Amino acid sequence: MDRRSFLKTAGLGTGAAAATSLATPALSQNRIQITCVTSWPKNFPGIGEAPERFATLIEGATDGRITMKVYGGGELVPPLKCNDAVQEGTAQMYHSADYYYQGKLTGYSFFCAVPFGFMPAEIDAWIQKGGGQELWDEVGGQFGIKHLPGGNSGSQMGGWFNKKMQTVDDFKGLKMRIPGFGGDVITALGGTSVTLAGSEILPALQSGTIDATEWVGPWNDLAFGLYKVAKNYHYPGFHEPGSLLSFGISRPFWDGLSESDQTLMTAIAYAVNNETLSSYNTNNGQALKTLVNDHGVELVEFSDDIYREFGKAAKDVLDKAGNSDPLTKKVYEAFLDFRAKAIDWTKISDQSYANKRALTPFV
Amino acid sequence: MDRRSFLKTAGLGTGAAAATSLATPALSQNRIQITCVTSWPKNFPGIGEAPERFATLIEGATDGRITMKVYGGGELVPPLKCNDAVQEGTAQMYHSADYYYQGKLTGYSFFCAVPFGFMPAEIDAWIQKGGGQELWDEVGGQFGIKHLPGGNSGSQMGGWFNKKMQTVDDFKGLKMRIPGFGGDVITALGGTSVTLAGSEILPALQSGTIDATEWVGPWNDLAFGLYKVAKNYHYPGFHEPGSLLSFGISRPFWDGLSESDQTLMTAIAYAVNNETLSSYNTNNGQALKTLVNDHGVELVEFSDDIYREFGKAAKDVLDKAGNSDPLTKKVYEAFLDFRAKAIDWTKISDQSYANKRALTPFV
Repeated sequence: MDRRSFLKTAGLGTGAAAATSLATPALSQNRIQITCVTSWPKNFPGIGEAPERFATLIEGATDGRITMKVYGGGELVPPLKCNDAVQEGTAQMYHSADYYYQGKLTGYSFFCAVPFGFMPAEIDAWIQKGGGQELWDEVGGQFGIKHLPGGNSGSQMGGWFNKKMQTVDDFKGLKMRIPGFGGDVITALGGTSVTLAGSEILPALQSGTIDATEWVGPWNDLAFGLYKVAKNYHYPGFHEPGSLLSFGISRPFWDGLSESDQTLMTAIAYAVNNETLSSYNTNNGQALKTLVNDHGVELVEFSDDIYREFGKAAKDVLDKAGNSDPLTKKVYEAFLDFRAKAIDWTKISDQSYANKRALTPFV
Repeated sequence: MDRRSFLKTAGLGTGAAAATSLATPALSQNRIQITCVTSWPKNFPGIGEAPERFATLIEGATDGRITMKVYGGGELVPPLKCNDAVQEGTAQMYHSADYYYQGKLTGYSFFCAVPFGFMPAEIDAWIQKGGGQELWDEVGGQFGIKHLPGGNSGSQMGGWFNKKMQTVDDFKGLKMRIPGFGGDVITALGGTSVTLAGSEILPALQSGTIDATEWVGPWNDLAFGLYKVAKNYHYPGFHEPGSLLSFGISRPFWDGLSESDQTLMTAIAYAVNNETLSSYNTNNGQALKTLVNDHGVELVEFSDDIYREFGKAAKDVLDKAGNSDPLTKKVYEAFLDFRAKAIDWTKISDQSYANKRALTPFV
């Protein structure tokens, strides 16, 4: 999904609302008000619900001692300026996807999603128990930011295509709306990656300005209405196999919190992280049924040959990106090391079980 | 894993320690002390760490206002009497695996693990967003217990076998230590399911009293030393594809908590839930490498034919169990309904991606 271009259409609010909020006097030393900027339209399903859920939980768990006001993308700062806003002190916190900030440091992408990267449980393991958190904080530290996991939008679909993609040659000349490293892979296969604002996608697909677009998964895609134009819904997406969302917290603000409030915020971030993925998995299952049964959508699996070419191109793209600077290189090497072990374990556990389960009469 | 028999070897402590704890006077109306009994040896890797982590987080997040004392299995009550202990008011809370309580209500098993049941992300989705929590509370309600998710030990391995299992006939006459519904499946294939205390497993495997045993996964199995006797490590396990652990909380205790403390405890349970699975995935990846590279363990994948027979037998076992009583029937039907949608989504997301990723040069 290129939430970027979608969000560019959201208007920029004035700073008025925030100024009011920030000016509200604290009632006691322990009372804390958090301003949280986000990259999403207010209450956007899944991703936009995660920061609201954090707000509800922190306010609920502290009986209102800590409150958090969530701003939709563009209300206080532009959707893709969340990291800057927290670095500069406009807000204490953001909820976003850290690959939006690869312009600040390429290595940021590895903490969200890269082509052929981690699946949701794998990135959770890396961040929480495999050394990922420490590296994420080192990257964030360059910008005065402490990070916590903020949900996962799950495995993404490969996208909506005007025709079925049958061989790798079908990508030659293909105009596809797909951002970042994923777009670089499409370019390497002879296609063109296009950036379009969200509101422009449907008409562009209709008029043939683009031949294909990726978005998120069944739940968000059904709401977006892409099935009305393209019927070939390809899977699996190679570009975002499990996008981790991020809470970015101002380091000076974080360091000023009591140890107990730091513990509380960490626990709540983990809870939101868990719950957001569960929302995606639950709603994707239901939406998939609706798309296929009610809207005549055809599910098309990318062939093994196409996937091998995706993989070759992705390796080149990541090898280049992963060596952009010393800190990114450190992150990339840790990513590759954990990824190899994660793949070995996934292969003989979830992956093998899912494949065998599909063979039984009990599915 | 049959943690049951393993835990029977743990001695029963006197109630002295708990009595002391329960007798400590509360310093103010808001100070809360929780006694938590568990089914695990103190600090047993993974499963035994989860309740300790809950204690650390709740104590940390409340700056010591809420404290929790965790008892290992047998210290205060027998390992498999946790549910009774909370029902009877001996403890306010337990951490256990709810299939241990299928004797109280068969339907309890569906909230932990059943053969060919949910993978970890699937059961999280069901519990958190798909109506599972409400049913779990209805089941717990029969015994005065409120439930919260308490971690997942991840996909389990198929077990350690003296010889490679090549056809379904190899199960005829096989003596395998495997509990519950999984054991019923082995019996249906002509084998014998055996129950043994943990300390007896290694000698029994060595002497030929049993031919095979399942335990958990690479991390716990490496520590247990089963590779010293049997070298054929089979996968994937059909019997526990993602065992959800459970916090069981006394309903009167829960109802007496403030709404904010209920919110706090829920968030912390979710955090522990997320983190425990990450521990298993991280450590299983590392342990798998050690087992194969340093201990000459051979990984053997069950054949498709064997799996089809597992599936047939499991369906019979579950159909029978799932109709034991009206409440269990209600749970079983909800389980089957969510499972069908979950499988459809898993197939085209994580499962398909994992399979395609394995084909690329980038693994």
